[in-house]
Amino acid sequence: MKRRDFNALVALTSLGLATRSASAGSEAEKRLTVVALVHPGMILLDLVGPLTCFNMMMADVHLAWKTMDPVRTDSGVTVAPTTTFAECPPEADVLFVPGGLSGTTAMMEDDDVVGFVRSRGTRSGWVTSVCTGSLLLGAAGLLKGKRATSHWYTRDLLALFGATPTKARVVADGNVITGGGVTAGIDFGLTLAARLRGEDTAKFIQLLLEYDPQPPFHAGSPEEAGQALATSVLARRAPALEAAKAAARRVAAKI
Amino acid sequence: MKRRDFNALVALTSLGLATRSASAGSEAEKRLTVVALVHPGMILLDLVGPLTCFNMMMADVHLAWKTMDPVRTDSGVTVAPTTTFAECPPEADVLFVPGGLSGTTAMMEDDDVVGFVRSRGTRSGWVTSVCTGSLLLGAAGLLKGKRATSHWYTRDLLALFGATPTKARVVADGNVITGGGVTAGIDFGLTLAARLRGEDTAKFIQLLLEYDPQPPFHAGSPEEAGQALATSVLARRAPALEAAKAAARRVAAKI
Repeated sequence: MKRRDFNALVALTSLGLATRSASAGSEAEKRLTVVALVHPGMILLDLVGPLTCFNMMMADVHLAWKTMDPVRTDSGVTVAPTTTFAECPPEADVLFVPGGLSGTTAMMEDDDVVGFVRSRGTRSGWVTSVCTGSLLLGAAGLLKGKRATSHWYTRDLLALFGATPTKARVVADGNVITGGGVTAGIDFGLTLAARLRGEDTAKFIQLLLEYDPQPPFHAGSPEEAGQALATSVLARRAPALEAAKAAARRVAAKI
Repeated sequence: MKRRDFNALVALTSLGLATRSASAGSEAEKRLTVVALVHPGMILLDLVGPLTCFNMMMADVHLAWKTMDPVRTDSGVTVAPTTTFAECPPEADVLFVPGGLSGTTAMMEDDDVVGFVRSRGTRSGWVTSVCTGSLLLGAAGLLKGKRATSHWYTRDLLALFGATPTKARVVADGNVITGGGVTAGIDFGLTLAARLRGEDTAKFIQLLLEYDPQPPFHAGSPEEAGQALATSVLARRAPALEAAKAAARRVAAKI
């Protein structure tokens, strides 16, 4: 089977629509191992955009947390971990860390979480995040000397961890790929799909997800939204942003 | 408090970052009631994009299914319903139906599900869907005489239900708003936010979600992806699409 055909089948397999030949084909390619941190206070959309792409890449996704207790997300929907830190595979093709400002801030000073992210990060093929998840990668010492991004309002904090804050939707530097805020998860997922499975598969996934975005307004970045709206967001987020900054400084002093 | 300031606070409240004044302010505006169908085989991203926007609009979101048993989604993550059909509020500001091709096909001929969608649809301020969810709205008789959209590969089926299939990311016709495939949920959510809470709030949400999409490829629609890729997707999806078409025809003969 040509690789292009095979990859198309891979996407189908994950959607439960595989034919017998697809299933047979899927045995020919190594499945990916993805370790995704899940944590209380995470933004569910940070996880689900990339997760949808991971699944279509024929991945075994491990949703890892300290315990098997469901973690509560911003959306009200809880996510059940599939493994504990202790039971999680020690190595992975991809480590993925979603964000969520208040959740990330708490996790940055949680030794268990940081230790887990560091251990899997140093043993994974790709070290990745979306939104404020990059602060956690930074706290684990995984961004030293790397260009990286984050949600627009926390991007500059990455410098505290020895990274070069970089303004882009998705930033790839070596094996580290970081995405911008929340909705960047889909752009990130497709970028990673292209690296891991080739551009044809990434485009197949994009068409299947009908990712042809047409935002009704031009307000997705501070530059497009304008000063007044950006100031309003920053003002309203000031307490949480101050807390994140303070935590990042304390952590940075130790790594 | 000015409405603009208030709306900014609303967004914050839903993220758990509200100050005391925000909480006080939030009592001044009526909370939205959203009824969202959840069903086995749904695409989690169909739900989570809109859900993120609903929550930022200060909504009470009811995730409704036949029972309280968690429903399994494409992603492997299960979603716990918050209410059964029987216990669900009879009226809502918004009825929302996510998609998922095989799941939707099964639901179209499930009398309990169709009956629930019809009853809430006729009593809701806005009748909405993303992706193949519009097939279920159609099966419930809610799209007669309406312009509507769906995932690109099921859009034409809407004609069977008396709708006018319309090619657009988000289609609004009266109180019916339908979105395209999967990732259109974010465009849909912002469109609805503007209708319900005003453009300033919608833009605030867009900036907070950093919705500044930059797909790495141009393959999000059949036109952009090109004939070969579109044919490949259609060929691979043929069995599921044939099943959806057959179900839609059977249902259409009865409504």
